[in-house]
Order: sequence, then C-alpha cells, then structure tokens
Amino acid sequence: MSATAAAALDGEDFAQLPESAPSTGREKSVADLMNPPVGLFGPKVTVREATEALREQVKSAFITYIYVVDDGGRLLGLVVMREMLLAEPDTALEAIMIADPFALDASLPLTEALKLALHKHFPVYPVVGEGGRLVGLVRGSDLFANRAVEISAQSGSMVGVDKEERMGTSLTRSLKLRHPWLQINLLTAFVAAAVVGAFEDTLSRLVILAVFLPVMAGQTGNTGCQALAVALRGMTLGDVKPGMERDLVRKEGMLGFLNGGLVGLTAGAGMFVYATITGEQQPFTLAAVVFLAMIIACSVAGIAGALIPLTLKRLGADPATASSIFLTTASDVASMGIFLSLATAMMPAP
Amino acid sequence: MSATAAAALDGEDFAQLPESAPSTGREKSVADLMNPPVGLFGPKVTVREATEALREQVKSAFITYIYVVDDGGRLLGLVVMREMLLAEPDTALEAIMIADPFALDASLPLTEALKLALHKHFPVYPVVGEGGRLVGLVRGSDLFANRAVEISAQSGSMVGVDKEERMGTSLTRSLKLRHPWLQINLLTAFVAAAVVGAFEDTLSRLVILAVFLPVMAGQTGNTGCQALAVALRGMTLGDVKPGMERDLVRKEGMLGFLNGGLVGLTAGAGMFVYATITGEQQPFTLAAVVFLAMIIACSVAGIAGALIPLTLKRLGADPATASSIFLTTASDVASMGIFLSLATAMMPAP
Repeated sequence: MSATAAAALDGEDFAQLPESAPSTGREKSVADLMNPPVGLFGPKVTVREATEALREQVKSAFITYIYVVDDGGRLLGLVVMREMLLAEPDTALEAIMIADPFALDASLPLTEALKLALHKHFPVYPVVGEGGRLVGLVRGSDLFANRAVEISAQSGSMVGVDKEERMGTSLTRSLKLRHPWLQINLLTAFVAAAVVGAFEDTLSRLVILAVFLPVMAGQTGNTGCQALAVALRGMTLGDVKPGMERDLVRKEGMLGFLNGGLVGLTAGAGMFVYATITGEQQPFTLAAVVFLAMIIACSVAGIAGALIPLTLKRLGADPATASSIFLTTASDVASMGIFLSLATAMMPAP
Repeated sequence: MSATAAAALDGEDFAQLPESAPSTGREKSVADLMNPPVGLFGPKVTVREATEALREQVKSAFITYIYVVDDGGRLLGLVVMREMLLAEPDTALEAIMIADPFALDASLPLTEALKLALHKHFPVYPVVGEGGRLVGLVRGSDLFANRAVEISAQSGSMVGVDKEERMGTSLTRSLKLRHPWLQINLLTAFVAAAVVGAFEDTLSRLVILAVFLPVMAGQTGNTGCQALAVALRGMTLGDVKPGMERDLVRKEGMLGFLNGGLVGLTAGAGMFVYATITGEQQPFTLAAVVFLAMIIACSVAGIAGALIPLTLKRLGADPATASSIFLTTASDVASMGIFLSLATAMMPAP
C-alpha cells in the first residue's frame, strides 16, 4: 500500500495559502479551520483492537494520531503511532497515551492559537469544545499558512493597507480599503503644514530653509521608521517581554540621538556648502541649525517609533495598524517645527 | 513509558525562535540547521526486525519516521509509523516505504528550503548530500520559526534595518547596522532638496507653497508605500506569478490616480481655505495646482511602489531591501517637483 501515506505526504498535506475571508467583522477562530475528528477510541481499548480498527479507518481518512476519549467524548489522551508499534498488543491505550495533551479551544481566535502552536509544530492539533469534548482536528499547515499570511501583512498595515487585501483584490475594493487611511494621513499632514505655516515670516526671509524641509522630514521619518520596524518585529516574535518596554524606548531614543548627530554632521555640511554657493549671509549658523535640529528631531522620532506600537497595543489595537501614519505625523511636526523654531531663534529678523 | 512521546510532544518539539547568526557574508543553508540522521534501515529489513531495533533506538533518540537507505547510505524511501503498525511483521520495509520521498538538499539556502517546505508542513525533513546520501534531518519547526523571523524582518528591511537586528542587539551594533542606510537616505534627500532649490524664485514669491510641501510629500509617500507593501506581500506569498508584473504596475498606477484625485480634492480645498484666510491673491489657482499635482504625483508614486521591488528582484537583490528609501526619493522628487513646476507655470511672475 503506502499509497495513503504517499497521498498524505504529498497530496493531503499540501495546504493552499488561504485567501483571507471577506471581513465579517469578527476574527476567524479555530472552529473555522477544523475538520471532524478521526481515530477516536476508548481508554480500555487494546493496542491490538485499535490496530485492527485502524486498518479499516485509514482507507477513508488520514489518521496521524489516535485520540483517547471517554463515553461523553471528552479528550483524555493522545497516542502516537510509534508507541502503538512498540507496545505489547494487549496493552490498553490509556497505558501508553499522553494524558491531557495540548489542545486548542474551538472558540480561540486564530491569532491566539498561532501563538500557542508556534513552538509546537505538530502536524495536527486536537480541538476541544465545552467540557473538554473533542470536537475536531486542525492541521498545523493550515494554522501556519495563516500565520505567514498574517505576518506578511504587517508592512501594509503600517500605512493603512487592510490585511484582507491581496494581489487578487479588485481595483474598486482596494480603493475602498486604502482610501480612508489616505484621507486620515492628509489630516495629519495638515497638522505638519500648520506648523510650517506658523513660520511663514521666517521662511519668507530665508527661502533656503524651505529647500531643507524635505531633508529634515525625510531623514527624521526614516530614523523613526527604523525604530518602529524593530519594535513591531520584537512584538511579533514575542521578544518584547513585559517590563522591557522602557528599555526599548530608551534604546531607540539613544539610537535616534546618535544617528541624528552623525547624519546631522553630513546634512549640516550640505547646508553649509549650499548656503555658501547661493550667497546666503550666515552659512555657518544655518549649518548649526540643521545639525541641532537633526539631533533633537531624530531623538524624538526614535522614541515615537517605539512608543507608538506599544501604545496601540495597550489600547487593545493591532500595534501595526496605521503606525507609520501616526509616526510620520510625529516626525514631520518634530523635525520641521524644531528646525524652523531654531532658525527663528538663532537668526532673528534684523 | 509514553514519557518519550510526551517529551517529544512537549519538550523536544519546542523550538526556540532562532537568533540569526552574526552576518558571515553567506546565507545559512539547510546544513546549518540539520541534526544527524536517526532511524535508518536497509530495504530488506522486515517490519518485525525494524520494530525490535526501534525499541532500543527510541531510548536515546526521538524518531518520527524510518528512513530506508542502501549500502552506500543513499536515501531510498521513508516509512511512516502508521504503515509499520498496520503491516504484516514479515513485510520488508521496501514494500511499504514511500519511494523517493521529498528531501532537502544540504546545500540549499534556507530561504529556498522554506519555499519548498511551506506547503508540506512535515515534522521532520530528510536532508541529502552528494549522490543522494542521507546526511541529516531537519525539524519543520526549526525551518518555520526561521520563516516567521524572515518575514517579520520585511518592514525593517524596507527602511534599512538589517535582518540580523533583534531586540537583544546591542546599541553600538544597531547603530553600525542602521546608520549607513540613513546616510544613503540623506543623499537621496539632497536630490529632493535640489529639486526644491531649483524653484527658490517661485518659493520666495509664494511662501504658501512651502507650507504645502510637507502635505504633497507626505501624501504621495504614503500612497506609494501602500503600493509597495502590497507588491512586497504578493511577492512574499508567491501571489505575483511570472507575467503578472505588468498588471500589478498598471493596477497600482490606476489606484494612485484615483486616490490622488480624491485626496487632491480635500487637499485642494484645504489650500483654498488657507490661501483665502491668509489673503493670497489667487486662492483658486493655488487649489488647482494642489489638485493636479496630487493626481500626477500619486500616480507616479503608485507605479514606483510596484516597480521598485520588482526591479530589485530582477537585479537579484531582496525586493524589500531599502525599497522604502528608494520609494521616498521617487515620491519626494515627483510630488514637490510637479507641485512647484505647475505653480511656476500657472502663476508666472508678473
């Protein structure tokens, strides 16, 4: 035979990456992914009896483990085939079973189930319902394919792409899903614009500052995004243990400070050269403004990059959701506001 | 007994998420993750003989499958325990084995191995070397933990965070890993600054344009990032099949156009209100400039968001690497360049 086994190894175990179901307003649970249970026996059944019964059952079902249940269908234990093979034929299943095996609750949200199963990597998990009754089996490949789909959605979530959106999503649906976040992004951009607008006098005196606005905003934004990405990844992989949040924020603030200082030197030098070429009055002061603003703004951006996903999580939201949009607002306001404030203070109108 | 099985299910199967090894300049291969092979038998060995031998072997090793090898150690087949259990004791292993089973090549890079194994989800994979010799076994949980680690690095890669960096990475090492990309980002920001600098005359006449620079850049950047994230996710999950690249680029260009139009209406309205309040001469023309520039720039950003990862892949690079840095440059140059060009053309100096 071995045909069943071959099918099991090459056919049945092939799990298509699931297309996410259209948003139904609730998260998928383990029950949505499970199949009916197979390979069930009572605790007093002997290895010989179970083996004989299996011989029939494997013709119609793919059986990986044997599940031991009581008369009420409650899951008592799990028997692996290797133990069946090595046991004496008269042994009762309860003598070789793993009692109280790891099982998933049918009502558990998939994301929670994934976290529990992440380190197990069993081919199949038993699913239990009310009172510990065995109600189904869920394949590890189905769970993990879902996890890959989940994690890969993160960089999209950060900028307002719905987890549901995949390559095959229609143009109109993509538009409907993405557009609201762009309007929100616009509102936050108006905040940054208002900050710049408050310095119109300074800008009209020193148009060269406008030339460096994109440098300040771009550089600070990228520094913050690095912090955000590292924080999110740490949260996804479970590296950020409770109590470590403060360390994370402190480290990212310090990195922002150091990166801002080093980048500020280059950017300040760029300003000095540009200001000299274009005949500005105080090229050195302009360079100092760029340097100082870069240090402060990058420190703020690093701290914001770590704080935003931590705050979103504390509020019960997905830490990735629109995090990049919030971060960009913070880093735009900080970078351009500090830059123009310093310029106004250090280069007052005559 | 069942202690072994319990350990197998709850202890040995627990795979720590691997900390990536320090960059050695080469990608990890399957050989780096494999353990020595166990449970090896010749093809003529009977089920009874193998079972007796297993009884001893399981005391010191965790055996999931039986591997059938010839005298030279070449992998001939794989036997699952269920088939051992159900077979007649005198059957030779070769009669119940799955011939030429799925195996990973020892020299295969981990990322390639992950792609091959993604849909299989076996607990253990045989690893073969030169001439098909069985040289080791690799646990599925180890492969998949690596995959989760891999995918979760993506949003960091986009902004120049190394895949190696994790929560535990030291401050100095994080600085060393992230900083070069920030200097590169700065160089690209200078390009955007140079574009703005080319319009200093226009800016000095119409300082209000400087106020809207962050709106144009931020909005266009986020539109492009949405396209980038969707494209990268499609490539990661294998949704982008060869020949679909053109459709992807076309769809993202169209989405950029539509999103740009709708957001342009809001942004244009914002400009009209602001210009009216601040007493600008031509509030309607200024609003029209914002609207038109937003449509064109968002179309460009959508196309760039799809093209950049596709191009990086074609060049043999990781499609995520620094993609956000390249995208920001493109969207900054496009948004501010188009915005200031249109303003100069539509509102010439008197």
